[in-house]
Amino acid sequence: MTLADQSALFLEDISVGQRFVSATHVLDSDQIKAFAAQFDPQPFHLDEQTAEDTFFGGLAASGWHVAAITMKLLVGNGASIAGGLIGAGGEIAWPKPTRPGDVLRVESEVLEVKPSRSRPDRGTITLRSETRNQRGEVAQVFTAKLVVPRRSETVQV
Amino acid sequence: MTLADQSALFLEDISVGQRFVSATHVLDSDQIKAFAAQFDPQPFHLDEQTAEDTFFGGLAASGWHVAAITMKLLVGNGASIAGGLIGAGGEIAWPKPTRPGDVLRVESEVLEVKPSRSRPDRGTITLRSETRNQRGEVAQVFTAKLVVPRRSETVQV
Repeated sequence: MTLADQSALFLEDISVGQRFVSATHVLDSDQIKAFAAQFDPQPFHLDEQTAEDTFFGGLAASGWHVAAITMKLLVGNGASIAGGLIGAGGEIAWPKPTRPGDVLRVESEVLEVKPSRSRPDRGTITLRSETRNQRGEVAQVFTAKLVVPRRSETVQV
Repeated sequence: MTLADQSALFLEDISVGQRFVSATHVLDSDQIKAFAAQFDPQPFHLDEQTAEDTFFGGLAASGWHVAAITMKLLVGNGASIAGGLIGAGGEIAWPKPTRPGDVLRVESEVLEVKPSRSRPDRGTITLRSETRNQRGEVAQVFTAKLVVPRRSETVQV
């Protein structure tokens, strides 16, 4: 992706109800353990045996690992926004554990499109992204506010 | 940390207003680029030069990288909860970009403690964690609901 990508979406190109579907990511236990060792070194993310006696009842990916993979899938082709995917924040939830062998895909929907009152060169959208596994179960929901440039002005991104 | 860690906190040990302060993490541009290459490959997280012409006006860490470092700091010594730090979800915001050279620290405060109505062996707490840089600026706020076991029952974590 480049910032001048012709297919990238400006605020004017985005409407409520618009949907994006990403490619998939296949997770394995090596990835789960490597991420956990660096950022979330808890027994249920690091070792199959130890994980069995925990809340998760087996090895599970860190929620932050799921969030990071979700971002990779969104940036890859889930939602191509002009100037990039720039989140101010949002709400995140992990309704189901993510396990070795899970195949993750992100399905996003635009909930709101809002031009900025103070900055005519931009606006925000609210994007709800569900990260689903191969059984269609929702492993993560992230509802984010994203900064999106407008096409109609000289864009200062 | 082990699950039998004597200093780990059960629901009964936690009260509203309780605070935790983590160790620090020094971020550099190599870490920013390595995380971005794997999970958030956008120009403003990957290359100093390209980043100058973007929304961020220079290299900035992925918000998910800041979230992951925050988790590392919390797990390390920020808040030692019995059974581990298990988040059901929460609200996240990134009020300030995080830059190479920033030194991050997490300051957490318990906002709510709530025994489960249906599960006598556990409850939830709401923990607000501010990730601050060396200038005291808040780079991230994460307000999370965490699952915490109770001491008074036979604990099934």
